[in-house]
Amino acid sequence: MKRATQATETPQVGRSVPRLEAAQKVTGRAEYVHNLRLPGMLYGKVFRASVAHGRIRRIDTNAAQAVGGVYRVVTAADIRAIVPEPYYGPAFHDQPILAIDKVRHVGEPVAVVLAADPHVAEEAAALIVADYEELPAVFDEVEAVTSRAIVHEVLKPAGTFPDLKHLKGRTNTNVALDFHLRRGDAERALAAADRVFEHTFRTQQVMHTPLEPLVSVAEPRESSLTIHTASQSPSFVRIELARLLGWPENRIRVRTPFVGGGFGAKLYIKLEALVAVLALLTRRPVKVSLTMEEQFFTITKHAATFKIRSGVAQDGRITARHCEVWWNGGAYADIGPRVTQKSGFTAPGPYDIEHVAIDSYALYTNLPPAGALRGFGIPQLVWAYESHTDLIARALGIDPIAFRRKNILREGRPQATGTPIADAAIDKVLERLAVTLEWEKPLERGGGTVRRGRGVAIGFKACISPTTSVAMVNLTADGSCIVYCGTVDMGQGSDTAMAQIAGEVLNLPAESISVVHSDTDVTPYDMATLGSRSLFHMGNAVRLAAEDARAKFRALAAEVGLADADAPIVEVFRKKYGMQAGNVIGVASFIPSYTPPDYATGLTPNATPFWMVGGTGVEVEVDTETGHVRIARLVNVADVGTPINPKIVATQLSGAAIMQLGFTLFERMEFDAAGQLRNASLAEYKIPGMLDLPGEMTSEAVAAEQRTGPFGAKGVGESGTFGVSPAIANAIEDAIGIRLTSLPLTAEAVYRALCAARGEPLGDD
Amino acid sequence: MKRATQATETPQVGRSVPRLEAAQKVTGRAEYVHNLRLPGMLYGKVFRASVAHGRIRRIDTNAAQAVGGVYRVVTAADIRAIVPEPYYGPAFHDQPILAIDKVRHVGEPVAVVLAADPHVAEEAAALIVADYEELPAVFDEVEAVTSRAIVHEVLKPAGTFPDLKHLKGRTNTNVALDFHLRRGDAERALAAADRVFEHTFRTQQVMHTPLEPLVSVAEPRESSLTIHTASQSPSFVRIELARLLGWPENRIRVRTPFVGGGFGAKLYIKLEALVAVLALLTRRPVKVSLTMEEQFFTITKHAATFKIRSGVAQDGRITARHCEVWWNGGAYADIGPRVTQKSGFTAPGPYDIEHVAIDSYALYTNLPPAGALRGFGIPQLVWAYESHTDLIARALGIDPIAFRRKNILREGRPQATGTPIADAAIDKVLERLAVTLEWEKPLERGGGTVRRGRGVAIGFKACISPTTSVAMVNLTADGSCIVYCGTVDMGQGSDTAMAQIAGEVLNLPAESISVVHSDTDVTPYDMATLGSRSLFHMGNAVRLAAEDARAKFRALAAEVGLADADAPIVEVFRKKYGMQAGNVIGVASFIPSYTPPDYATGLTPNATPFWMVGGTGVEVEVDTETGHVRIARLVNVADVGTPINPKIVATQLSGAAIMQLGFTLFERMEFDAAGQLRNASLAEYKIPGMLDLPGEMTSEAVAAEQRTGPFGAKGVGESGTFGVSPAIANAIEDAIGIRLTSLPLTAEAVYRALCAARGEPLGDD
Repeated sequence: MKRATQATETPQVGRSVPRLEAAQKVTGRAEYVHNLRLPGMLYGKVFRASVAHGRIRRIDTNAAQAVGGVYRVVTAADIRAIVPEPYYGPAFHDQPILAIDKVRHVGEPVAVVLAADPHVAEEAAALIVADYEELPAVFDEVEAVTSRAIVHEVLKPAGTFPDLKHLKGRTNTNVALDFHLRRGDAERALAAADRVFEHTFRTQQVMHTPLEPLVSVAEPRESSLTIHTASQSPSFVRIELARLLGWPENRIRVRTPFVGGGFGAKLYIKLEALVAVLALLTRRPVKVSLTMEEQFFTITKHAATFKIRSGVAQDGRITARHCEVWWNGGAYADIGPRVTQKSGFTAPGPYDIEHVAIDSYALYTNLPPAGALRGFGIPQLVWAYESHTDLIARALGIDPIAFRRKNILREGRPQATGTPIADAAIDKVLERLAVTLEWEKPLERGGGTVRRGRGVAIGFKACISPTTSVAMVNLTADGSCIVYCGTVDMGQGSDTAMAQIAGEVLNLPAESISVVHSDTDVTPYDMATLGSRSLFHMGNAVRLAAEDARAKFRALAAEVGLADADAPIVEVFRKKYGMQAGNVIGVASFIPSYTPPDYATGLTPNATPFWMVGGTGVEVEVDTETGHVRIARLVNVADVGTPINPKIVATQLSGAAIMQLGFTLFERMEFDAAGQLRNASLAEYKIPGMLDLPGEMTSEAVAAEQRTGPFGAKGVGESGTFGVSPAIANAIEDAIGIRLTSLPLTAEAVYRALCAARGEPLGDD
Repeated sequence: MKRATQATETPQVGRSVPRLEAAQKVTGRAEYVHNLRLPGMLYGKVFRASVAHGRIRRIDTNAAQAVGGVYRVVTAADIRAIVPEPYYGPAFHDQPILAIDKVRHVGEPVAVVLAADPHVAEEAAALIVADYEELPAVFDEVEAVTSRAIVHEVLKPAGTFPDLKHLKGRTNTNVALDFHLRRGDAERALAAADRVFEHTFRTQQVMHTPLEPLVSVAEPRESSLTIHTASQSPSFVRIELARLLGWPENRIRVRTPFVGGGFGAKLYIKLEALVAVLALLTRRPVKVSLTMEEQFFTITKHAATFKIRSGVAQDGRITARHCEVWWNGGAYADIGPRVTQKSGFTAPGPYDIEHVAIDSYALYTNLPPAGALRGFGIPQLVWAYESHTDLIARALGIDPIAFRRKNILREGRPQATGTPIADAAIDKVLERLAVTLEWEKPLERGGGTVRRGRGVAIGFKACISPTTSVAMVNLTADGSCIVYCGTVDMGQGSDTAMAQIAGEVLNLPAESISVVHSDTDVTPYDMATLGSRSLFHMGNAVRLAAEDARAKFRALAAEVGLADADAPIVEVFRKKYGMQAGNVIGVASFIPSYTPPDYATGLTPNATPFWMVGGTGVEVEVDTETGHVRIARLVNVADVGTPINPKIVATQLSGAAIMQLGFTLFERMEFDAAGQLRNASLAEYKIPGMLDLPGEMTSEAVAAEQRTGPFGAKGVGESGTFGVSPAIANAIEDAIGIRLTSLPLTAEAVYRALCAARGEPLGDD
């Protein structure tokens, strides 16, 4: 390491700077909450509900309390003694810290055993007994609309998101929120269309599977509380705990070191409220870390049902589309209502359709809660609308790419909400897919029992809005530089990107800049690390903060009579302060402009600060004897604006595609009729391994620029997920003429469909 | 606790706000480095030199290394493998992390044993054997000038303080630095004076005795290092470690939670360089915490010899003064050279003297190093010049207060450096002492063997300059507020004062504001918490940062159309950001103007940003049979500007006076002829207890204003020490006609002087 006192003329942006944290991580020295041990710390083990819906008759903790080494057993009654209304949630205040009166899904936390030894806590938790009066349960998202099983008797909107308003007059409280959009007159246009196509698609409930399971530690002080947590949203944790406890924010400190993957699992409140109240009850530090099994009961990705109906003119123009989407949010809303609205409004896909109607519903069911997962509902929507697109093209006898070319949204054209498309290279992504796949050349189909096919799909996504990021950039007297930024680096490389942005502005090598991790007593406010927002929002905040620092430094240089262009940083400080002393601190806040949708129509001229675009092309080999689908080739193309770090962009795209590959081919949480999860372990719930990877995989960013982004860049964390599922389903149909409409596309599902197509359907499994 | 969303009209400044940290401290929940345990942490135990000056022949660590559980034994050779020049120090780079080639004082660190169990480390350290070739040693500061014992062969100025330049052409390297000042022509004026008085005074070496001994922990990461340390100067620690390691500052993080007293002992580098290199050598966290005994060998307060000669006119006006001061810096300079210059220039006292000469010398000797201790040399100087003042007044038959009244510096008059006195209420302090002591009324003298007497003394001090403080004030969306400030709260109440200053600006209750503790990755630069600089420097920085935040908030309020006067903070944020989000962050840097002294004359028109003034009056009872001195009454009066927190001001003044009482009446490090310390424990080195307190004690701030200070305030941590020692000596002479010129004024010293005065001197002890 050498002193970073010399400015550089090397561009910092657009360069594949090696990850700043790489050495720490490969040597095992990176800080994770899992490694944190505090003097006097207690470990909490959660006792969980064994029924999907039931009124709690009795919780017997006597045997657990009697285990030697148990410090205390805590139930909701203990918590309510210090927090009378212990309900949390980003959209609804619906989730109790521990179950109150009833349980709403199998695996819901009911009690916690605290002990200095985690094994003692685990042993004792197994001795707790709870009796329930079982209640009717509902598991299907469409059935939930009419079911007599009511998950929540009363809805409690959080008010956090001002544009999340469930429609007045609705009586079924299983519908947490409904979002409706009407542009033009879809029903009339459908009636008048040359052809009408209607399909229904389903996606399954899956899990995020971060390598680091959820973990939080609360450390009580006399009148304050420090929460060390693997969280994607430290600022939210602080605000929500302050609300729960009735404390001002500055008495709560939320620290997040490195996080071992998040993918949306570690957003909002997960274990933080629990450890907070346990620490306040015991006046001891408390740690709760989940096993992989427990994560399945904590947060998942929405299953969804999507009914899509399109009117198409004889020439292949889509004239009207009606989308109905039911999101299975499980027992607690988490951020599901936001998914309903935010993803809802892009449900018709990246197509230029004059008449659009959307009805999107967030449902409560008696399954584990669902929230955000890499794509925030978009992969489910793209699965549906891009399967639908191919079905239409095929029915019309139009080449799938030609059909898309005819219908895609082009620059300046209004999207479903009416917001004009800007800096969204949908056309470039589509054309690049065609070129890379050599679409014009016929595919070698293969022979015998293994058939080859190919497929494409494109998707797009709006970014969450309006949200705020604040950053600080601190130039120290030896010329080294520190960036303070609440973005959580959970593996996506944000530290490196932020250092590159600050370095570009300040003309310093990115490698010499350090990035301070999220700590609400240290780093300024950031909404959260989610939805591919950070590079754009925090990147802009860091850029502005660095510009502020640069302006202040130039003023300082001028003040001490050193021409700014060639003034070494060290000299300017020394001349001003007489020794190695002082700081130049730049501060900036970034909030993009936004116009909330009209309440009645769902329309807005300004729905998003930027658009993400991703497309996938695949070539598959389907074994008609076994149903096994092999991905011979997978091509990812995305519009990420101008990449800050091309290598990180490539790994984000390929990582996203592989994750979506698991959701496409085999991942599924399997529940029995009573709502019991049958495969809550990585032995039974399969995620992609090396052997599941495509035979060939490329990831590519088209030449593009997000003019409002930092140095032309925008988010890239999710775009690689969009097209994977429908591209594969489209390729399967291309290979064997079989259309699957439910995920995952397992060998069994393919085989069953083949049998059914042959008129020899198999029985139920 | 309630939400701090409501502004208040209550003044925050001038109110005795209870200490923000009081509850944490009394419940034992406040964070101290002593309580920090990290996974895998090693404890280091230091093996120390047994001779005062010797060339190292051999260090045998075999027996220590063989003790079960010992992880490693480290000597300077190991350190030099990773840090080729492992010498540190704020003024000279003279101090090796572990002894190299030779040892320079008894107790110097020679080797360190590392073990997971501190008891194992201690046991093993006792088995290390070192052989020395003994060298001639020097212990007396005056003898050091001419001694053939040379402590350092070469001087290595750090260059950190640009105005610290030892005079060219000097050859004796025992003189680390000499400071000379000449104003007018003191020699000619002395020759022409009606009367000339010359006296020599001595002070002893003492120790800071913070309740929390020195402790540091280093935590290595892959390419960075976190130092948790009980330090008064985290920013300096970072800069100095960066220099030692050749790293940029941003790879080193220095955290300081609460500190259990400092008094100057915890400044600059103490254990931090040692734990840093041990952590880098082992790749493990390393903790070194000193015993009380070890602190005596680590940092102490200068013994000094002060020869003072004054010319006085018949009417009692002092016309000329020559001061010669020799500062016994021990084996390593630490900040001694700064004491030599900074305290040196106030050596003639707060008197208006036309002709002044000052010669002040920083000496190396073979005693434990001396540095800053509450007053930074001033109590030693005041001891001399105020004893001298009384001797002159007595000789001239002038009342001591009347004599001072005639000679004190008044507003606008030039001090020795030529800097005009401004906002220094020397006259008010003197007059207040006279009133409080009822000086015009004769004192009841008592009878029998116990005689009563009274005395006064006044002193003043400049503040270190130029130094910088940077602060940030963060207003969060719920209206709570956080102050980021590198000032270390080591018991002086700075957190509370800074919260009051920010609260005054922002119209928020101080109790609702939280203050983030020093952490170089979090809090901006601050020179150090020393020399009563923080309330003035950091207080001004916090005030300016709060004003910056207020201006930004008002701009935000205007932007969202809310009139600022009655706009609730929460509403302004919500209107801007659409949810509870964002920050308003004010930043400010404060550096007072300063003119370095002229190299040749030592003169400057701008020596200090402010003056501290303190005076003490005492009434004593001297037992002529035992020599015991009882302080019947002690009156402290000081100019602290306008107090921010009157109760804290009072406790600072009384605490300082009691500390100085110990140094006056009994504290002394006793060395034998070989430089071995004979009383390195609190059993044998007595500090004041309840029974030593004055019968009556009052602490009072005169009505004053420091116009350049935050809300009129200035530092108060040291002013209570200034006058204590000479006031007591003056009172003893007033009681029994005996003049003592060496500290401490023990019963034995008084008794010996009484015997000598009777013509019956006792032999040596």
